[in-house]
Amino acid sequence: MRAIARRRVRTVRPGDAPRAREDLLAVEEPLEVRVNGSRFSVTMRTPGDDFDLVAGFLVSEGVVAAVDDLPAMRVVTGLAADGEPTFNIVDASVTGPGVRAAADRARTLYTTSACGVCGLASIDAVTTSSSYPVLPVGLTVPEAVVAALPDRLRAAQRLFDSTGGVHAAGLFDAGGDPLVVREDVGRHNAVDKVVGHALREGRLPLSHAVLQVSGRASFELVQKARMAGIPVLAAVSAPSSLAVELAQEAGITLVGFSRGRSFNIYAHPHRIV
Amino acid sequence: MRAIARRRVRTVRPGDAPRAREDLLAVEEPLEVRVNGSRFSVTMRTPGDDFDLVAGFLVSEGVVAAVDDLPAMRVVTGLAADGEPTFNIVDASVTGPGVRAAADRARTLYTTSACGVCGLASIDAVTTSSSYPVLPVGLTVPEAVVAALPDRLRAAQRLFDSTGGVHAAGLFDAGGDPLVVREDVGRHNAVDKVVGHALREGRLPLSHAVLQVSGRASFELVQKARMAGIPVLAAVSAPSSLAVELAQEAGITLVGFSRGRSFNIYAHPHRIV
Repeated sequence: MRAIARRRVRTVRPGDAPRAREDLLAVEEPLEVRVNGSRFSVTMRTPGDDFDLVAGFLVSEGVVAAVDDLPAMRVVTGLAADGEPTFNIVDASVTGPGVRAAADRARTLYTTSACGVCGLASIDAVTTSSSYPVLPVGLTVPEAVVAALPDRLRAAQRLFDSTGGVHAAGLFDAGGDPLVVREDVGRHNAVDKVVGHALREGRLPLSHAVLQVSGRASFELVQKARMAGIPVLAAVSAPSSLAVELAQEAGITLVGFSRGRSFNIYAHPHRIV
Repeated sequence: MRAIARRRVRTVRPGDAPRAREDLLAVEEPLEVRVNGSRFSVTMRTPGDDFDLVAGFLVSEGVVAAVDDLPAMRVVTGLAADGEPTFNIVDASVTGPGVRAAADRARTLYTTSACGVCGLASIDAVTTSSSYPVLPVGLTVPEAVVAALPDRLRAAQRLFDSTGGVHAAGLFDAGGDPLVVREDVGRHNAVDKVVGHALREGRLPLSHAVLQVSGRASFELVQKARMAGIPVLAAVSAPSSLAVELAQEAGITLVGFSRGRSFNIYAHPHRIV
């Protein structure tokens, strides 16, 4: 599935004559997620790793917690206006308690967080709904590893090099080795893709992984870490106030402004050694 | 309403001793939007200019098109768990055809785009639903003005200077003078806030304004420009493929990678002179 599109573009430098050339853009297309045949949500995403995206999104939404809850996914093909086939619908077969959770969600405006921004607005709802409590002990990560992760994430980004317009998320072990890195025009999608990859490999809860993201740390990204049992979340840019509050309550180590040479710790610093 | 929160933070520079200090964070809190007393959506936003945010969001959603459609808004106060009052619910009184549109939306999962990401996934739906077709003539903007807008937007950002964690959107006239600039942890919210401000001042359609945003140009930002009748959208970072397609179809001039000395034009370059 194509993740990059070519478009004619005119580059303007005031004073010089405009120059026409071809530019590479990150593709953005809608993805409809169905659960057991019923519409669940629509998200705008960069095509590719769609099964990972759907799996991770269903983890974030509390519909799926382990690979056994998700016995199958299939692409429902459609037809675009120009007659070309489309691959923008994924139907997920879900079993277990998530079936009911999905139906409840589909009835409630509040919780259609296709993008993570409009979702569960209550810290209480989030902190009580995860299958994977974050344990206070277990993972520790050396300072030097945390400091190196932004560069390692950047080095693994292929779409960014071409298009300059995508976010990235990566799961790393305590030694800084990458488990999986994914890119997407949407910040939340990139995180869902790495979590979904881990789920499908039977690796949840991710109690020994560090999640490094390319942008800000919002409430929703902490929420996604929480649902996957990830104890350390590091962001290149600033956290919001609610991200810090949720990290504190959920026991998650939250790192922000991580830019190679230094970083800030906003919650639960004991895991950074 | 507070937009900045103070938090204790530990700054780590590997090799040095960690340093504890106080950091300023952009506040992120949920806002519930009600239309005529019924729940419409929840978004995570930075408190402040909430009436502008709600007004602009309702423009983006096709519920409101002019100031007369929105005779009143009021804050519904609540109580937090700690007994403190909260101001995170706004009830909008809507009249006209939007009442029905709002009810339809509330029934349809597809269109609960509190954040703009999960909303109308069809270009057709967007390009036919705006009250304000973008006219091919009218506004022209000099190259030098377009090139100067990112710095002017940045200069007007107050939260960013403190927290480093917020997006901004600004409406400017063809001479580069700002009509209004707003900041928010959410890119879409910042745009809704400037559009809502313009609506409340009776300025829609914004057929002579340039919308400058701090981040990427996604499909949803073009959609929001379209709904407000804005003919020129300029982004500091990259556009997505679908943003370019929608801009082309809607007749909107789309500028990307606008970084002070040069910029790219992805659609309808004729307005940049």
